[in-house]
Amino acid sequence: MRFGVLGTGMVGQALAGKLVELGHEVTMGAREAGSEKAVAWAQAAGERAHEGSFADAARFGEMLVNATAGTASLDALRMAGADALAGKVLIDVANPLVFGNGLPTLSVSNDDSLGEQIQRAFPDARVVKALNTVNASVMVTPGDLPDGHNIFVCGNDDDAKREVAALLEDFGWPAGDIVDLGDISAARGTEMYLPLWLRMMGATGTAQFNIRIVRG
Amino acid sequence: MRFGVLGTGMVGQALAGKLVELGHEVTMGAREAGSEKAVAWAQAAGERAHEGSFADAARFGEMLVNATAGTASLDALRMAGADALAGKVLIDVANPLVFGNGLPTLSVSNDDSLGEQIQRAFPDARVVKALNTVNASVMVTPGDLPDGHNIFVCGNDDDAKREVAALLEDFGWPAGDIVDLGDISAARGTEMYLPLWLRMMGATGTAQFNIRIVRG
Repeated sequence: MRFGVLGTGMVGQALAGKLVELGHEVTMGAREAGSEKAVAWAQAAGERAHEGSFADAARFGEMLVNATAGTASLDALRMAGADALAGKVLIDVANPLVFGNGLPTLSVSNDDSLGEQIQRAFPDARVVKALNTVNASVMVTPGDLPDGHNIFVCGNDDDAKREVAALLEDFGWPAGDIVDLGDISAARGTEMYLPLWLRMMGATGTAQFNIRIVRG
Repeated sequence: MRFGVLGTGMVGQALAGKLVELGHEVTMGAREAGSEKAVAWAQAAGERAHEGSFADAARFGEMLVNATAGTASLDALRMAGADALAGKVLIDVANPLVFGNGLPTLSVSNDDSLGEQIQRAFPDARVVKALNTVNASVMVTPGDLPDGHNIFVCGNDDDAKREVAALLEDFGWPAGDIVDLGDISAARGTEMYLPLWLRMMGATGTAQFNIRIVRG
């Protein structure tokens, strides 16, 4: 299958690398084709790995991943173009974190979320919020953590969520650990979890962790 | 020990009941002494159970619990009076949830939290945010859930956090499952977790659950 991964950071590289490893063709997109990080990744990742602009990646992919910084995601997707997103599953893994003086905050939260903003801005894209509650390494090697632990999906399109869940299983997430939280408004929950995630990281001393739902 | 529990709802009743069960003297406080729910609770809970106004409860307690609705907590604590709070450990278990049309939101979040507002408003109280990430039943009977699962404390006073952690152990929380997230600003994290908690409740079909940190 052909994937377009928007974003060249740690998350984009981890996801694009895993997709190539699974046998998919991947174009990593940046603001402009020929970006240093995307070129280096494509050269190292082999013949199924390509690079280009956000628009190149979006046109190339049958399924798309938004792995840009959350505060830049809407701009990046506008550069990709609504036409290139239309009808496609768009996995939004971004968090709208703002790092400045003091504690990180979210640029959108509480009565809205980045996932909802993206779905509203691109109504023909099939947005599925997923994977934004774990670090890049846990996303693609969930088995490196002991025990079962959970990953969330949400979105308005049930078929799209099923396609994303199948991909997560290919990544190594057991089907029973994938939790469907409902429509895209649940992105408020998974994005607003980040401040707690950051403090748990501080308390545990590692970003290599996740949470498991323990029920009665 | 003498406790003042502010709030007569499910959370207040669960905590006050557990404290009496553990042998403590408890005054449950409401806006006015003689409130129907507080009187009924005190009559049913036995001779160590008392009721009164917020001020009565705050004056009575050597340790205090804020179990009022989060959006009403600052008013309730003002009625209790800064003098009655001064120097005492105040366990803040409230969440500033606003239920209206559409999804619940938080009345304070992102760059502030209820826990921080309370600490700022009452600088001589020793505020510890705790227990607000689980429902009333899990708070006081954590052993009803299988496996280990985690509870968070945060606050600016390390001794106060140690006293609260000891109380949580009396409630049945194993010491190793109590996670210190740092100063009171971590209340942003545990309060902003509520939207995810609500969606997990929807997905799991029960409020009888909690999360466990799984680390690598």
